[in-house]
Amino acid sequence: MYSEEELIERVRRKFTPHADGLSVGIGDDAGVVRPKPGADWIVTTDAFLENVHFLRKIHPPKSVGFKALARAASDLAAMGARSRFFLLTLALPDACTGKWLDDFLEGMARAARRFGLVLIGGDTTKYELVWINLTVIGDADRGKAVLRSGARPGDVICVSGRLGEAELGLQLIHRRLHRKNRWSSLLKKHLYPEPRLALGQWLVKRKWANAMIDTSDGLSTDLGHICKASGVGAKVFAEKIPLVRMLPDLQRLGLDPLRLAIDGGEDYELLFTMPKRLASRLPHQMEGIPITTIGEITREKRICLIDSSGRSRPLKPGGWDPFRKRR
Amino acid sequence: MYSEEELIERVRRKFTPHADGLSVGIGDDAGVVRPKPGADWIVTTDAFLENVHFLRKIHPPKSVGFKALARAASDLAAMGARSRFFLLTLALPDACTGKWLDDFLEGMARAARRFGLVLIGGDTTKYELVWINLTVIGDADRGKAVLRSGARPGDVICVSGRLGEAELGLQLIHRRLHRKNRWSSLLKKHLYPEPRLALGQWLVKRKWANAMIDTSDGLSTDLGHICKASGVGAKVFAEKIPLVRMLPDLQRLGLDPLRLAIDGGEDYELLFTMPKRLASRLPHQMEGIPITTIGEITREKRICLIDSSGRSRPLKPGGWDPFRKRR
Repeated sequence: MYSEEELIERVRRKFTPHADGLSVGIGDDAGVVRPKPGADWIVTTDAFLENVHFLRKIHPPKSVGFKALARAASDLAAMGARSRFFLLTLALPDACTGKWLDDFLEGMARAARRFGLVLIGGDTTKYELVWINLTVIGDADRGKAVLRSGARPGDVICVSGRLGEAELGLQLIHRRLHRKNRWSSLLKKHLYPEPRLALGQWLVKRKWANAMIDTSDGLSTDLGHICKASGVGAKVFAEKIPLVRMLPDLQRLGLDPLRLAIDGGEDYELLFTMPKRLASRLPHQMEGIPITTIGEITREKRICLIDSSGRSRPLKPGGWDPFRKRR
Repeated sequence: MYSEEELIERVRRKFTPHADGLSVGIGDDAGVVRPKPGADWIVTTDAFLENVHFLRKIHPPKSVGFKALARAASDLAAMGARSRFFLLTLALPDACTGKWLDDFLEGMARAARRFGLVLIGGDTTKYELVWINLTVIGDADRGKAVLRSGARPGDVICVSGRLGEAELGLQLIHRRLHRKNRWSSLLKKHLYPEPRLALGQWLVKRKWANAMIDTSDGLSTDLGHICKASGVGAKVFAEKIPLVRMLPDLQRLGLDPLRLAIDGGEDYELLFTMPKRLASRLPHQMEGIPITTIGEITREKRICLIDSSGRSRPLKPGGWDPFRKRR
């Protein structure tokens, strides 16, 4: 049995204590940071909960720690922000205060180093289930953060990575196939997602993106968010969507790669729109991650999916919404 | 059954959408704020959980909303910061998405207006229990935030308000006496605590406080935090502690006012140290809240409680620690 103070000390030891602009880190009533002159601050908060977002029996604690922070950092990527600081609220059962916590913190510390985030505060409490809340803070040059609301008719719609990879991992878990060795690499995107911070910042630097979001809820839902915020519609070409690669022996599971790509959540890729005249200058990949043009923004406020024969059908939000039943 | 989007819309409507320095409020991937030039940012996060911090059957939803934000704002008060923005993570059972949520939001919106906090983002999800996490952001002139670590031998120790009032309310609830009309006013401090933001800022402006903390865990624990962080000790005079007022018919409950004051948590008063030479200039009250000198900081690293006959005994941390059993 640990005291709260000992737990805080264990958390503190796992993370870098110093950073540019950090005056007071964890240990006082609040963290104190010095914003860079001329920068806007980008702040977001994200819950990651046992039995909602992960299962303690299935998800390794390293993945839980890594993914909790990656998800939150992805919202910074979606604004094109530079990642700076984070605060961790951690509720734990007694059974998780030993090795589970060590592994969890190791995963989170790895994510923090990888994504350039420094822990500046938090809260710990005891609970029956593991409850994690992350608040992440980034910055961007004044007025440069990319919003959901800037998409304009005629913009091309682009996406990073391959869509549906995280959902495929989740489906393998649902089918209890995740322990099969030959498929374990397919779980990587589900367990250790990579927020596209470099791409987001690169787009901001060039002022190329008019609107941007991360694909946390799935393409159909997240494109809907952009269209709604921007007061526009979109058409997406099914053939152009970068689909998850399906191994032959996965196909008999009845998983449709297009469906995984459209409605599957948690890929944490960037979905953005940009003026068509710039599209030819967009690289096809960045740091090995493909960047693909999948459609365009329209004046009519419908969102359509166009198949290979040119037929159009409405693309309805089918992604993750915790207040609706999962399809 | 509500969708997440409808829920977010209901939350958004309850709060002020505009504020100085706010570029993008709730609705995008993150909030965007413009820090005041020359200011430090003070950031803290705080969980408020059903069955740990409140009971849905006993605590009115208005109190849950108010107190969740008040607790978090109290950490800003403890740094002497000005309150600015907050982010709300809210997990809710279906049963709480109707009137319960309306009342909860009303209580939180009242607290937000009262404490000068503007909602800039959040996260909602479905869960079996009500789970709330608040991140609050304040600012202070550069380098002026008051830390726990600045107490010096010879400083006087001061506290605002009366200690033990919130604990008395909690004890009445434990004894199922909270519905008795003549005692309902005693619950106010437990249900609707008031962070001492004005006092904190006033002390910062005058540069009078060397160290400060809010009494969230109880005097014995929180004074311990100051002493540990500052590498000092303290003596506290029992007779000087501003005790909760006990009505005569409460005394037969066997509650000891001194014990309530020393170990009772959640008063959210300010506990601070300041140079002795300034003590005579400290007002006895501010906005009706008493300010009392209760002891002094010592070089020896013990914390002692001195009774009316001059006897000294160690003052051990007896306050709230979620990872220890409640005494």
